[in-house]
Amino acid sequence: MATQKQKVAIIGSGNCAIAKIIGLINLSGFNTVRHSDVFERRVDMYVYEEKVDGQNLTEIINKEHTNQKYLPNVALPENVVATPSVEEAAKDATLLVFVLPHQFILNICKALKGNLSPNAQAISMIKGVDVREGKISIFADVIQEALGVPCSALSGANIANEVARDKFSETTIGYRHGRRKQAELFFKLFDTPNFRVGLIEDVAGVSLCGALKNIIAIGAGFCDGLGWGDNAKAAIMRIGILEMKNFAQEFFVDVKPETFTETSAGIADLITTCFGGRNRKCAEAFVKTGKPFNVLEAELLNGQKLQGTETAREVCQFLTERKRLDGYPLFKTIYRIAYEGLEPSKLTAEL
Amino acid sequence: MATQKQKVAIIGSGNCAIAKIIGLINLSGFNTVRHSDVFERRVDMYVYEEKVDGQNLTEIINKEHTNQKYLPNVALPENVVATPSVEEAAKDATLLVFVLPHQFILNICKALKGNLSPNAQAISMIKGVDVREGKISIFADVIQEALGVPCSALSGANIANEVARDKFSETTIGYRHGRRKQAELFFKLFDTPNFRVGLIEDVAGVSLCGALKNIIAIGAGFCDGLGWGDNAKAAIMRIGILEMKNFAQEFFVDVKPETFTETSAGIADLITTCFGGRNRKCAEAFVKTGKPFNVLEAELLNGQKLQGTETAREVCQFLTERKRLDGYPLFKTIYRIAYEGLEPSKLTAEL
Repeated sequence: MATQKQKVAIIGSGNCAIAKIIGLINLSGFNTVRHSDVFERRVDMYVYEEKVDGQNLTEIINKEHTNQKYLPNVALPENVVATPSVEEAAKDATLLVFVLPHQFILNICKALKGNLSPNAQAISMIKGVDVREGKISIFADVIQEALGVPCSALSGANIANEVARDKFSETTIGYRHGRRKQAELFFKLFDTPNFRVGLIEDVAGVSLCGALKNIIAIGAGFCDGLGWGDNAKAAIMRIGILEMKNFAQEFFVDVKPETFTETSAGIADLITTCFGGRNRKCAEAFVKTGKPFNVLEAELLNGQKLQGTETAREVCQFLTERKRLDGYPLFKTIYRIAYEGLEPSKLTAEL
Repeated sequence: MATQKQKVAIIGSGNCAIAKIIGLINLSGFNTVRHSDVFERRVDMYVYEEKVDGQNLTEIINKEHTNQKYLPNVALPENVVATPSVEEAAKDATLLVFVLPHQFILNICKALKGNLSPNAQAISMIKGVDVREGKISIFADVIQEALGVPCSALSGANIANEVARDKFSETTIGYRHGRRKQAELFFKLFDTPNFRVGLIEDVAGVSLCGALKNIIAIGAGFCDGLGWGDNAKAAIMRIGILEMKNFAQEFFVDVKPETFTETSAGIADLITTCFGGRNRKCAEAFVKTGKPFNVLEAELLNGQKLQGTETAREVCQFLTERKRLDGYPLFKTIYRIAYEGLEPSKLTAEL
């Protein structure tokens, strides 16, 4: 008897998420066709319905197989079908790809719970950490707990529009203990000659890389704003990756140091984030203009919250509750510059 | 009985070397005065004599305490004394700082051999590797063997003019097994609040970081020339640091992996070299203009040899002799693009 084919569902939400992962959507569409022995051809994609020029977004996607407004000239594969119902998208799916903004996770999981295939597994591309009541969680754990299905994590130096344009990129999948074979299905779903997927048994490490790197990017931006040059910025990045690693090892179990120092999710993504990206840019502007971050968010990001300052605040609040803030002088200094009026030039004073 | 004070000699050679380490010369001058309990005040510096505007270079340095021609507006400390005689400079010195171009090492060591203090130790800041007759050596070993005194290595993300201008930087000293206490004298000679020195028991690792990073910078420059974007460049750097580490562990003893992934000599210097620096720049021009490297060296570097292509050639020649070239696909591909006409767009094909 042949094994049942894998059915893929992308649990996205709205244009923003689609723009962020259009490259990965393309790869899923491409690979489900390429590996037709493993995957069902059709990939369902949950899309939060909205009107674009009077038309339903899902209908535009299914008719035009593109998203001119957000990523012009990038075609979506025809086998990726948008649907406004998350239950419909996830029905019978064995591979669930989560790319929601984190505030929607719990409600979406509530809608899905009990309606999933018994063989379903999930993967999270959601950045950030969930800090509450003196506890810190990664979203792969939040999803796994809420759905009752195993959840891996994917993160890496894979800026969406470069992936969508088939420029060479890498990413990292962190899988759970003993589940390498199952994680290889996600490898097969995303890996192509120009998009190399690495696997490592470390869900927490991969997730935390994606979250904590944004704090370091704020520090790198301060450095740029101060005009301190390449040596200082490289030093901030080096110290940053070590604080990220130490934090993960102190507060999560079974974290691998090499996730931070050797994978695409770790050092490579830190590099792209500290040289490109909105966190670095806003932090540079913070030093140069003297404007507070909420003003810069309004001016430069249409009011969207910056992930780096937000994560710095959450992580430092957590470290303060655990009386461990002094163990992370770079996190602490970045937080104090961003929120407590510390002079940016004090960036390295406590290192 | 008080311990004898340490006497420092800088074994430089000509303007080029001085320009490269003027920051370190300043730090030595500053720290010998600051730690007057440990160091003799006077630091002797061997300078290859030449005429500048009709005057002897050593006399200009000793009179004006500056080097307007090479690093304007950076003062040299008054306690650093230039001398055209290397034997004179090294006489009674207990700490010898080597910053010669590598082709001069053997002759200089010959002049010094037998004329050194019995307590002398050396540190090498010389980049590159010595490949001959199927053997590969680091210059710290060449110096140690030629002089018969222990030799450490210093390397890191410390671009000279930023250090000289007291911007925040870090560096790494690799010391020999069991010699941490002695290496701490070099730590004390260079470390300041804005120039942080790390110590690691790994002379080979620190030396090889300084040499092999230049190969990766050529790859990063190809990437820039191809317009492949940030993901691809970060991937090249990530794969690069792993090939550097693997090479060191395969062909040298007692190399520590974290020298590559966690120190200033390793990942931090790789970052500065892949974003700034002449290797990256010339490699980008190689792809964009189609001109061979010897033409670009003539046009962009006044005919000076590029270290990255030179090291790629030496390392790949060594790997070929050892029948191990295929174990290092990034080194190999960079070499083949630079010297054998391989299409730059094949950069990632064998990774």
